[in-house]
Amino acid sequence: MVSEFDSDTAVEAAGEGVYRADLRDGWRIGGGLNGGYLLAVLGRAVAAEAGLAYPHPFIVSAHYLSAARPGPALVRTRVIRRGGSLATLEASLVQDHDGAERVRVVALASYGDLHGLNDDVRTTAIPPELPPREQCLPTSLAPADFKSNAPLLDRIELLGDPATFGWALGQPAGEGVVQGWFRLPEHEIDPLALLMAVDALPPVTFAMGLPGWAPTHELTVHVRALPAPGWVRLKHSTRNLAGGYFEEDCEVWDSAGRLVAQSRQLAGAPRLAGP
Amino acid sequence: MVSEFDSDTAVEAAGEGVYRADLRDGWRIGGGLNGGYLLAVLGRAVAAEAGLAYPHPFIVSAHYLSAARPGPALVRTRVIRRGGSLATLEASLVQDHDGAERVRVVALASYGDLHGLNDDVRTTAIPPELPPREQCLPTSLAPADFKSNAPLLDRIELLGDPATFGWALGQPAGEGVVQGWFRLPEHEIDPLALLMAVDALPPVTFAMGLPGWAPTHELTVHVRALPAPGWVRLKHSTRNLAGGYFEEDCEVWDSAGRLVAQSRQLAGAPRLAGP
Repeated sequence: MVSEFDSDTAVEAAGEGVYRADLRDGWRIGGGLNGGYLLAVLGRAVAAEAGLAYPHPFIVSAHYLSAARPGPALVRTRVIRRGGSLATLEASLVQDHDGAERVRVVALASYGDLHGLNDDVRTTAIPPELPPREQCLPTSLAPADFKSNAPLLDRIELLGDPATFGWALGQPAGEGVVQGWFRLPEHEIDPLALLMAVDALPPVTFAMGLPGWAPTHELTVHVRALPAPGWVRLKHSTRNLAGGYFEEDCEVWDSAGRLVAQSRQLAGAPRLAGP
Repeated sequence: MVSEFDSDTAVEAAGEGVYRADLRDGWRIGGGLNGGYLLAVLGRAVAAEAGLAYPHPFIVSAHYLSAARPGPALVRTRVIRRGGSLATLEASLVQDHDGAERVRVVALASYGDLHGLNDDVRTTAIPPELPPREQCLPTSLAPADFKSNAPLLDRIELLGDPATFGWALGQPAGEGVVQGWFRLPEHEIDPLALLMAVDALPPVTFAMGLPGWAPTHELTVHVRALPAPGWVRLKHSTRNLAGGYFEEDCEVWDSAGRLVAQSRQLAGAPRLAGP
């Protein structure tokens, strides 16, 4: 049985370094397709091009240039260096726009084999403290008019920590933190799915009382270990909303308590409503 | 008068999107040229190619593929999109290696005009607490045999916080933090110099009792504001040394107390000596 995540991120070879994809409306949130979903599609094409010795994303740095739309897309890949423990590629997710090709996402990606990492773990970061899952807020409780424009919520299982989801009830905590439990239906969180997971939570700006669109300009992911099976814990935080931009750090902790991915994105701050 | 930083990072147009550079031995530390210096050289070529409307680095994501050597180099640039508030380019710093061109650093760079940022600053990050500069450790005090192989130390002014530089006296604090005061001789820390500043401190692994080479695999910089003149405060920290890699976050705080740059790199952990 093929999971929805697998079928919706599938790519097909279409010539020298080129892969064909079909972006699905199901991963839309508001007016745009989820940036983590786009990264997973791009990441699958990179894995195919990198070759069997380099199956996993280690480092993916992506710049988001224009809003992707549901429908056909190409991923154009180019190997910059393959050799040693990492292969580095450039990849662009492009779509036709009025007869011209437009770049949606361009990325540099270094792939390797996570099985090759040594066992020396000295993590000092502390995993987010989350209430038991049955005390968290499932996305299925989101208001119907919101969900109707956010089919993404039916593709993922996200259980929000109530302490950081007060904004969903009109009472933002004011702090730049959003966290919760996460998994995908019928699909373990593997290294490719981590590329989606780091962008699965709502923007931290919601928790700061700033609703509205927060476009990602750049997102870099470091995959640090093969995740253990089961639910992962996600934490988004920001410490520098300034000048119309904010950084958003994401941590992904697996069921064994390992920090399996770290990411940082630079996003545009939601525009404030006038007085 | 042209500062050493300006003359050593100079680039010269050499055809369609191509810039010629001369990498100077003065920025060497041990066996390799400083990664921040290489990023500044690459960043100057990107600024020239991006055009006058996009003078400053906003986001630079660089993957380091092989060790650069003093001597001639080219920066090959390609505009991916120019328009709106940001221009995004791909750029590669390449050198001849036995008659073939080898990529040292490949980057995606989004440039804009920092004068255009709004004044809404809600930073919650806290600047590093540093002792007064006269109580810090200047690099001029480094042992002569170390300095003889680290000409970089003569190009920068770095005053280490003694609490995080115990390793220099054989007494590492054990925590993953290194911080200090920084400036360049005869050159204010402008946005381009920030690309160097984020890689100016010694690796945090020194403070963890792990001396040795910690090669940068990837470094992403977010420049968040035009720095005020004067000394800046630098802080390096890590929270996830694991599996042979560690992330190193850098913050740069200007003399006006603004967090003007944030970066994260993924580096290889120094190999431990056998028992």
